[in-house]
Amino acid sequence: MKGTLYGIGVGPGDPELITLKAVNILKKIDVVIAPRTQKNEKSTALNIAMPHLRQNTEILELVFPMVYDENQLNEAWLDGKNTILNLLEQGKQVAFLTLGDPMLYSTYIYIFRLLAPHRVDIQTIPGITSFCAAGSRLGYPLAEGNDIVSIIPATCGQDKLARALDYSDSVVLMKVYRNINEVVDQLKSHHLSEQAVMISKCGHPDETIHYQIDRSADLKPVYLSTILAKKSLSKQVE
Amino acid sequence: MKGTLYGIGVGPGDPELITLKAVNILKKIDVVIAPRTQKNEKSTALNIAMPHLRQNTEILELVFPMVYDENQLNEAWLDGKNTILNLLEQGKQVAFLTLGDPMLYSTYIYIFRLLAPHRVDIQTIPGITSFCAAGSRLGYPLAEGNDIVSIIPATCGQDKLARALDYSDSVVLMKVYRNINEVVDQLKSHHLSEQAVMISKCGHPDETIHYQIDRSADLKPVYLSTILAKKSLSKQVE
Repeated sequence: MKGTLYGIGVGPGDPELITLKAVNILKKIDVVIAPRTQKNEKSTALNIAMPHLRQNTEILELVFPMVYDENQLNEAWLDGKNTILNLLEQGKQVAFLTLGDPMLYSTYIYIFRLLAPHRVDIQTIPGITSFCAAGSRLGYPLAEGNDIVSIIPATCGQDKLARALDYSDSVVLMKVYRNINEVVDQLKSHHLSEQAVMISKCGHPDETIHYQIDRSADLKPVYLSTILAKKSLSKQVE
Repeated sequence: MKGTLYGIGVGPGDPELITLKAVNILKKIDVVIAPRTQKNEKSTALNIAMPHLRQNTEILELVFPMVYDENQLNEAWLDGKNTILNLLEQGKQVAFLTLGDPMLYSTYIYIFRLLAPHRVDIQTIPGITSFCAAGSRLGYPLAEGNDIVSIIPATCGQDKLARALDYSDSVVLMKVYRNINEVVDQLKSHHLSEQAVMISKCGHPDETIHYQIDRSADLKPVYLSTILAKKSLSKQVE
């Protein structure tokens, strides 16, 4: 196949937190693909990429359902795959955008796997993760020395969460939303709540930050918040 | 204090994996500080920053010993702190460089803490982590869905390592070196070795990549290698 697919991490949302490498690739590509989960949702990744594109770059906003099942690939996923393959066969240079980093919890991972058997030339460009952005924004060191830091989707289930909190010195809880009370209870019982901070829409104009989440009676996180937490030195895993 | 200290993550080593935000700050600062652990070591972070500095930007290479003990601050650390405070009092805009991300296992974290009581205006700029760069370079998804991914310094001790491997779906092992055989044995017994990949000097001209590390009899990693590993689907944590 003549074209190359570039999987590009555009960072967590701040347009300046994109890499020079991503910008240099966006400047030369023919087609940019911005994945969406819903038809009416605005693509933040596309907004970040836009100023770096040439005027004649083709923009494709493809809808990919959030639920992905390798055994039940639905039409949207197969259509997306075929669209990309057709473009690459035409010799086009194609960019597939991802918020954050392409190899961490992204739609791109599925597209990457779907394309792998087709001998496509793929280059993946890493991006700034949302939790690194949150750590810098809050002045919150995520790990030092021999600390183990775990990245945990808050949707992973109570038992799994409990075990992970047990062995980690420091945690990043992603996608905190409806289960906030359970999450805070678990953080409390694992000595992780005192220094915990919850941040929503980090770096956006409507960013919110909550300290002392263990003392707030009625926390209602904005959709998809992140909690950074760490054990006090005396409680660290040995 | 009139000046601002910028803690800048310059990414994992590839000069293009620096953010626009970092570049824009480097263009306007008066002094750049590149920390070193040894006097004769070349600063990769400084090499990455150099093309973005103005000609009259002052460059300070400060030596910070690798071992840090809050209760036994030695002269080098205190000198470094005082140097920065003096510059900020003069109204200078100062950048402190870090490879990778400033809030993950960096010298910057200690300087950040030392300066905190002095009411310094500090802005921290996140960077691309070495493990995100490795994931993209290798086409190795680090986490998807409800996966828990743990970042583990291989120097953390056998018991701590064992517990972390037990409850993680996916792991990043940092600083793998002399204890490589112990690490591989532990990965084997936790169903993490089959898909493991070891990468050294990711993105550098002398990069090395080892697959099938569980079948290599005599692995000798270059100083500070990284291993990416994940459980096969059937062994994942539930």
